Amino acid sequence: MSNPSAFFGTVPPPQRLLRPLHVNEKKLFGPGPSNMPPMVVEGLTQPLLGHLHPEFLEIMDDVKSGIQYVFQTNNPLTFAVSGSGHAGMECAIMNLLDEGETILVVQNGVWGQRAADLSDRLGLNVRKLVVPEGEVISVEDFSEAVDNYRPQVAFLCHGESSTGVAHPLERFGDICNAYDCLFLVDVVASLGGAPFHADDLKVDCVYSATQKVLNCPPGLAPISFSEKALKKMLNRKVGCFNTCAKIKVKRVPSFYLDALELGNYWGCFDEPRRYHHTAPISLVYALREGLSIVAQEGIKNLVERHQKNAKLFYDALKELGLEPYNYRLPCLTTVRVPDGVDWKAVQSKLMAQGYEIAGGLGPTAGKIWRIGTFGVNSNPEDIDALKLALKSALYEQKEEKTHLKASI
Amino acid sequence: MSNPSAFFGTVPPPQRLLRPLHVNEKKLFGPGPSNMPPMVVEGLTQPLLGHLHPEFLEIMDDVKSGIQYVFQTNNPLTFAVSGSGHAGMECAIMNLLDEGETILVVQNGVWGQRAADLSDRLGLNVRKLVVPEGEVISVEDFSEAVDNYRPQVAFLCHGESSTGVAHPLERFGDICNAYDCLFLVDVVASLGGAPFHADDLKVDCVYSATQKVLNCPPGLAPISFSEKALKKMLNRKVGCFNTCAKIKVKRVPSFYLDALELGNYWGCFDEPRRYHHTAPISLVYALREGLSIVAQEGIKNLVERHQKNAKLFYDALKELGLEPYNYRLPCLTTVRVPDGVDWKAVQSKLMAQGYEIAGGLGPTAGKIWRIGTFGVNSNPEDIDALKLALKSALYEQKEEKTHLKASI
Repeated sequence: MSNPSAFFGTVPPPQRLLRPLHVNEKKLFGPGPSNMPPMVVEGLTQPLLGHLHPEFLEIMDDVKSGIQYVFQTNNPLTFAVSGSGHAGMECAIMNLLDEGETILVVQNGVWGQRAADLSDRLGLNVRKLVVPEGEVISVEDFSEAVDNYRPQVAFLCHGESSTGVAHPLERFGDICNAYDCLFLVDVVASLGGAPFHADDLKVDCVYSATQKVLNCPPGLAPISFSEKALKKMLNRKVGCFNTCAKIKVKRVPSFYLDALELGNYWGCFDEPRRYHHTAPISLVYALREGLSIVAQEGIKNLVERHQKNAKLFYDALKELGLEPYNYRLPCLTTVRVPDGVDWKAVQSKLMAQGYEIAGGLGPTAGKIWRIGTFGVNSNPEDIDALKLALKSALYEQKEEKTHLKASI
Repeated sequence: MSNPSAFFGTVPPPQRLLRPLHVNEKKLFGPGPSNMPPMVVEGLTQPLLGHLHPEFLEIMDDVKSGIQYVFQTNNPLTFAVSGSGHAGMECAIMNLLDEGETILVVQNGVWGQRAADLSDRLGLNVRKLVVPEGEVISVEDFSEAVDNYRPQVAFLCHGESSTGVAHPLERFGDICNAYDCLFLVDVVASLGGAPFHADDLKVDCVYSATQKVLNCPPGLAPISFSEKALKKMLNRKVGCFNTCAKIKVKRVPSFYLDALELGNYWGCFDEPRRYHHTAPISLVYALREGLSIVAQEGIKNLVERHQKNAKLFYDALKELGLEPYNYRLPCLTTVRVPDGVDWKAVQSKLMAQGYEIAGGLGPTAGKIWRIGTFGVNSNPEDIDALKLALKSALYEQKEEKTHLKASI
């Protein structure tokens, strides 16, 4: 700083920031984020409170009870990680496993790949059960793998958003239980759109995200740990020490994602709450409202509405001559791109009409469209409008191709 | 699931979620979050876009240029981590250092402690330069420590919010540079409230948070890495491989906080953007608006405003017979609790008047109040109103004490 007068002069104010912000409203039919209902927007704009203010702690308690409800669990260690669904996945894996322990990952799409990637980064012993895209693993094969590898944790993605598969969950928890293995389930894309019941399914850890069926802005990852999972955390191999939950345990590599610290901040333990980090207050308000809407409708009704409207959508696709790539996840439908159709052109034409849908992801890239009908977007009127928009986009794309051919 | 009809019946909808949400407006004079101006609230409520929508990528570019401006840097690798300031700290340390490498932490309060804690969790070799609370390290002592320990990274907190100290930064970067050590600076509490210029100060990595002077909701951590820092990241010891930035490098333990992956998503490299995670869209909008307000006022004017109004506040404190614990950080003032005064009672009485202030943190708990005047809250009218509220709270507390004594 040889020239103090130039102290603030090096980097000028960016001109692009002086323009007003304007965002065009879109119908979000991609794999998330989805559209926010007015009550969620209203929540988002409530005045900020301090992150340890008693009024805010009350709202955190509301959110905690709402997450227990949507997961259908009584686990006391239930809260929202201050990050997207990925942060939830990292929080789960990091806290459930110690370096060198084994995780069995069922991989039938991108999310299994990601879970294996994260585990590998954390120095875990990763065993994979790879299933072709769009398919599911049988209970028998799963059982055999658990018997072979004796993992500490088995990972399964309930709603594989890269393929549109809702993976069956029945009996998987029983198998894990028999082998003293923790059952970890990703319900990011499926929560509220397909039946799920953490306690009945003997799930030891489950996480989700807010920007799908819950219709909230992204940025929080609801998560829950069973008593068995907590017990394992409290018995982490002794290394360096911490005094969370009144006993000394080895600390996980991250402070931000330490489930014992987060559990304290969210009031999950019988001890005074400590400052851990500043929660994203506005997103917590919004999630509170998203969960309130679910509590009003009832989780059973919500799932059934998605199932009913998914059928309407499958019929609409059939009418358009389109084939669902598969159709097991009621809130996210994957549609095979017909031969000779330019998937990106169709997507752009829908975008021009104000409809956002997505292409494939990972192994399904270029092969499918992914169309989400999450929460408020799962209704007959929107599905009908989407059908018409899709119809005209397909028609235009075909016309253009014909003209192009004719002009060559 | 022996009884399918009971599938959704185990956990009932929480009654507390059926009540409407109501948040009382407060004047937030704590160490953050601060109050949001209308333009930030307006930004927060804009309709959601997909996290890879071209319109959203434009807004991310706005934010990137705004962060470069407030940090006063031209670093291309500049973006916002999708988490609170703590996530920024973890992202910085994790990406700058490999397991077993040495970090020198200057610790004069809670944030140095936290940086040492995170580093320890990550398996780093942590060397500390501990200074008593409220004090700062001399350039000479720093230089000696760097010479002794030869760290890969040296950490310094610019605005130590637990004590109210703004640490001098001049010449520290030169010393780091001479020893091929990266200079890491935390400006969470100081950004926009005290002079800072990353490039002139030879800072290699700097991170902040959004809920202080920027007056945005918490949940994002602006961060920037120098070319030298990036070069070190790209030369990480070969272990398991990744293909970020077109070359193979060892991957950091976290996917969510991987700066090379985040840099790609934020368009910092000359390569197509990939899906990494779903950014907290609404918070990015709000930050865009917070940065736009700074660009309009000018960072120099903003800092000078905080300095000017801090002086007003020091005068007000003097009038009330209060002694600033120290007063170097213009946006966060720490005030010594006078002997015989119950700090918590005074805080509660202010709270009852709608004013939020905080007590001490860590070593300063019980000894001080921490009073933030961040961004829109740094103005003569609010400072005057706060003075009056503080005066009446102190008076009431004294009165009550006298009555209590009299009745015994």
